[in-house]
Amino acid sequence: MNMNTSSTTGWTLGELAEKAQATLKGDASRQVTGFSTLQDAGPDDIAFLANPAYLKHLENTRAAAVLVSAEHADACPTNALVLKNPYLGFALLSPCFARTEQMFEAGIHPSATISETAELGEDVSIGPNVVIGAHVRIGRGTRVGAGCFIGDDTEIGEEGLLYPNVTLYHGLMIGKRAIIHSSAVVGGDGFGFAHTGKNWVKIAQIGSVIIGDDVEIGACSSIDRGALGDTVIGNDVKIDSQVQVAHNVQVGDHSALAGCVGVAGSTKIGRGCLLGGGVGLGGHIEIADGVTLTGMSMVTNSIPEPGVYSSGTGVMPNAQWRKSVVRFRQLDSLAKRLNKLEKS
Amino acid sequence: MNMNTSSTTGWTLGELAEKAQATLKGDASRQVTGFSTLQDAGPDDIAFLANPAYLKHLENTRAAAVLVSAEHADACPTNALVLKNPYLGFALLSPCFARTEQMFEAGIHPSATISETAELGEDVSIGPNVVIGAHVRIGRGTRVGAGCFIGDDTEIGEEGLLYPNVTLYHGLMIGKRAIIHSSAVVGGDGFGFAHTGKNWVKIAQIGSVIIGDDVEIGACSSIDRGALGDTVIGNDVKIDSQVQVAHNVQVGDHSALAGCVGVAGSTKIGRGCLLGGGVGLGGHIEIADGVTLTGMSMVTNSIPEPGVYSSGTGVMPNAQWRKSVVRFRQLDSLAKRLNKLEKS
Amino acid sequence: MNMNTSSTTGWTLGELAEKAQATLKGDASRQVTGFSTLQDAGPDDIAFLANPAYLKHLENTRAAAVLVSAEHADACPTNALVLKNPYLGFALLSPCFARTEQMFEAGIHPSATISETAELGEDVSIGPNVVIGAHVRIGRGTRVGAGCFIGDDTEIGEEGLLYPNVTLYHGLMIGKRAIIHSSAVVGGDGFGFAHTGKNWVKIAQIGSVIIGDDVEIGACSSIDRGALGDTVIGNDVKIDSQVQVAHNVQVGDHSALAGCVGVAGSTKIGRGCLLGGGVGLGGHIEIADGVTLTGMSMVTNSIPEPGVYSSGTGVMPNAQWRKSVVRFRQLDSLAKRLNKLEKS
Repeated sequence: MNMNTSSTTGWTLGELAEKAQATLKGDASRQVTGFSTLQDAGPDDIAFLANPAYLKHLENTRAAAVLVSAEHADACPTNALVLKNPYLGFALLSPCFARTEQMFEAGIHPSATISETAELGEDVSIGPNVVIGAHVRIGRGTRVGAGCFIGDDTEIGEEGLLYPNVTLYHGLMIGKRAIIHSSAVVGGDGFGFAHTGKNWVKIAQIGSVIIGDDVEIGACSSIDRGALGDTVIGNDVKIDSQVQVAHNVQVGDHSALAGCVGVAGSTKIGRGCLLGGGVGLGGHIEIADGVTLTGMSMVTNSIPEPGVYSSGTGVMPNAQWRKSVVRFRQLDSLAKRLNKLEKS
Repeated sequence: MNMNTSSTTGWTLGELAEKAQATLKGDASRQVTGFSTLQDAGPDDIAFLANPAYLKHLENTRAAAVLVSAEHADACPTNALVLKNPYLGFALLSPCFARTEQMFEAGIHPSATISETAELGEDVSIGPNVVIGAHVRIGRGTRVGAGCFIGDDTEIGEEGLLYPNVTLYHGLMIGKRAIIHSSAVVGGDGFGFAHTGKNWVKIAQIGSVIIGDDVEIGACSSIDRGALGDTVIGNDVKIDSQVQVAHNVQVGDHSALAGCVGVAGSTKIGRGCLLGGGVGLGGHIEIADGVTLTGMSMVTNSIPEPGVYSSGTGVMPNAQWRKSVVRFRQLDSLAKRLNKLEKS
Repeated sequence: MNMNTSSTTGWTLGELAEKAQATLKGDASRQVTGFSTLQDAGPDDIAFLANPAYLKHLENTRAAAVLVSAEHADACPTNALVLKNPYLGFALLSPCFARTEQMFEAGIHPSATISETAELGEDVSIGPNVVIGAHVRIGRGTRVGAGCFIGDDTEIGEEGLLYPNVTLYHGLMIGKRAIIHSSAVVGGDGFGFAHTGKNWVKIAQIGSVIIGDDVEIGACSSIDRGALGDTVIGNDVKIDSQVQVAHNVQVGDHSALAGCVGVAGSTKIGRGCLLGGGVGLGGHIEIADGVTLTGMSMVTNSIPEPGVYSSGTGVMPNAQWRKSVVRFRQLDSLAKRLNKLEKS
C-alpha cells in the first residue's frame, strides 16, 4: 500500500504552484492526487528533480507535473513547476499528500483521563486512553494520540503532534509545532548516582527538559531531564529515532541528530550541527556551531572549530581486518621503530 | 522463576518425537514438562546436544530425554530423540514449553476502541485499551496485546502476535505470522527535511512500510515509513531489539539484524545477510546477498560481494589505546616516511 | 520550568543536616525549597561543592546553604552542612526536592484491568489503563504508572516505581525498590533462531528475567528473557536509557551500564563494572569484576583482568581521517615492510 496514490481528493497544479511559490508552465487546472519519484510517478502524480543524477529519468517520466529548476524546465516533457530549489518545493508540497489525520481523532475521547486542572486550548484533540496530569497546559490545535501520558505541570505549545504512546514526564516545557513520535520519552531520569564505596545512591533528577519551537523527536527516542538545572533543546532541532540525549545536554538551534545518536551528560552541541547516525558524544564536552560528524563518530573531547569530523575504521574483509587490528595494537611501537630507522 | 519448569500439562516423548521428526529410542509414554540445558535439566525436562563442546555434559545429564544426532545416540544415557539437526529440533519443540498465552487474552476486550470499519478475522483477540483505526484489516488468529495502537488503513496478516504497547502507524501492510514486541514502532516518519538556508522544512513522509511474512521485530525497535515509496522488509527477516530501520530501506528475505543495528535511509540489504549487534549502515548504499557484518561494523560504502566483513579496533588497556589513537592520526605520514626510507 | 524552585513546602537546614548526616554550621531553622548549583542557586536553595574546580563559585554563591567537606567549611560564606562526601550528601538530599508524585496517582484507578488472581500489597497504587495479568504479585508501596502492562505470573517487590507505559512480560521476578522508566521492556523474546538451510525457525524463549533489588532501568531500554534458563541482573545494577541486554546475559551486582550499551547473548558481566555509553559486548564472553569500558568500546573477547579498557579511533577532520582509514587497511603490509627494512 503506497500512500502516494491513496489520496483521492487531490490538488490542482495551480494550487500547488502557489504553495511552492513556483512558476507554472502548463495546465493550472490539471488535478494530481499523489507525489512520487520521477521513475515511479503515474499520470496522477507530481514528481521533482533535485539531484542532477536523476535527470535521465526526466525524459520518460509519466508524472502529471515535475518540480524543476529553471535550467531543466525546457527538458521537462510535461507540466513544470519551476522554482529555484525543487527539493524545498518537494518539502513544501509534501504535507498535501500526507495522511496524518489517520493517526488522530478529533475531539476529546471519553476514555481519556484528564485532570480538572489541566488547560486545553482551542481545537485540542485527545485520543483514547490518554492520561493528562494536573496543571498541564496544551496549546491550541495540538493533537495528542492514543495512550499518551503527560505528567503534572508539563506545558506543550500550539499545533503540536504527539503520536500514540508517547510519554512526557512532569514539569516539562515544550514549544510550538512539536512533533513527537511513538514510544518516545521526554523527561525520564538522567543517569546520576553517587557511590558510598559499597552501593550506588540515586541522585533524584530534579531538573527538567525545555524544548524550543519546531522540534521533532523520532520514535523510541529519549530525552532525559536535568539533574540540577535543565536539559535544553533549541528551536528547529530535529532528532531522529532511537536517539538518547542525557541529562543537562544543550542542543543549539537548527541542529539535527540522526538515528541512534547518543549524547552523554552535560555536553553542549552548538547551532546548526549535523550528527550522523550512531554518533556518540562523551559527557561534559562542547561542540562548536556548524560541526558535522559523520556516522558512528566517537567524540571524547570538545571540538572548538566548525568542519566535518569523523572517526572509526572502514569496513574490510574480516581476515584482513583481523591483521589490521593486531597492528593497531602495535602502532606506537611501529612508529617508534620507524623513528629509530630514520635516525640510523 | 524459570519458566522451563512451570508448564504442568506436558508432552509425551512420543508426541515430541513426532513434532521434531525424530526417531525415539526409549519410552514413548514418558512425560516431560520443561526444556532445559543438559547441565540444568531435571527428570521432567528434555534437553539437546547440538554443540560438541557440551558432549561432556551428556553422560551425567538428569534429563528425561535428549535430542541428539545419530553419532551421539549411543552415548545418551537416557531416552534419545535422534535426528539430523538437534538444534533445529530444539527450535521445533521450544514452542511446546513457551507461555505466550500469558501475554494475551482471548476475545475482544470491552475497553478496546475499534473503528466500525475495521475488519477482524476469525479468532482475532484484542486486549485491553487497544485502539484500532478505520479500515484496518487483521487476519485470522492474530492476537493484539494491551495498549497497542493500529492506525487507519493498516493491514496485518493471519496468526500474528502484537505484544502490548506496540504502535503501528497508518497505511502499513504487514504479512502473516508477524511477531512484534513491546514498544516497537512501525511506520513513524523517516528523517527528511529540506533546508531553506535558515530553517529546516519537514518533508512529510508519504510512503509506507511493507513487511513480508514470518517477520519478527524486537522490543523498542523502529521501522520508519518511506518518504516517497515504501520501506520494504522481505519475508523471514528477523529484527532484534533496539534496531532502527530508516525510510526507504529494503531488507532482503531471510536477513537477520541483531540488536542496536542502525540502517540509514534508502540503503538496500540483500538476501540472507547477517548483521551483528550495533552494526551501522550509511545511507544510499547496497549490501550484496549473503554478506555477514560482525558486530559494530561501520559501513559507508556498498559491499558488492558476499563474505564476512568487519571494522573497528579491538579493545585494549586504555593507556596503550591512547598511544595507538595518536598514531592512528599520524598513519598517513608514518606510511609516507616508510615509503621514503624504502627508497633511500 | 526548573523544578528546583517549584517545591513550596521546603525543609529546614536542621532537617536536611540530619538526613545527610552532616554537621550544620549555621541556622537550623532556615527554610530551603530547592537544590541547585553554586552558580545558579537563589536564596531559597541549597547547593553543594564536590568538585574543587567549582571552588571559585563558593565565595559568591547566593545559596541559603552549601554541602561542603571540612576543608572548605571555613570558605563557605553562608550556612554550611559539613560532611565527608558532599556529592553523596547531594544524592541523599536530592529526593527531598524531586516531584515523583507528579507521575503517579494514589489508589487503584477504576480504568485498570486487574486479574482477580493478582496479589497487590499494601499501599500499591495502580494508574489509569494499567493491565495486570493472572497471579501477578506486587509488593507493598509499589507504584504502577498509567498504561503499564504486567504479564501473568510476574512478581515485583516492594517500593518499586514503574513509570507510565512500561511493559513487563510474563513470569519475571523483579526485586525491591526497582525503578523502571517509560517505554522500557523487560522479558521480551531473545533473538534466537535455528536455520533449516532455507528458513529461520524461531526458538521460543522459555527462560525468564530475574532482577535483583535496587535496580534502575532507563527509558526505552530492553532486557530480553532467556532462551533456556534466565537473564539475570544482580543487585544495585544501574541501567541507563536505550540499553539492550540480550538473552541469558548475567550482570553482576553494582555494575552500571550507560546509555545505548548493547550486550549480546549469554555474556557475563562481573560485579562493579562500568560500561560507558554505546559500549558493545559480543556474545558468550566474560568480563571480570571491576572492568571499566570507555564509551563506544567494542569488545569481542573476554576480559579476564580488572582495569580500564578502550577501543575505537579518535575523531579527526574528515579529510585527514580518510587517509588514516586507507592506511589502516594497509597496516599489516606497512608493518611487514618495516620489519624488512629493519633487517636490511
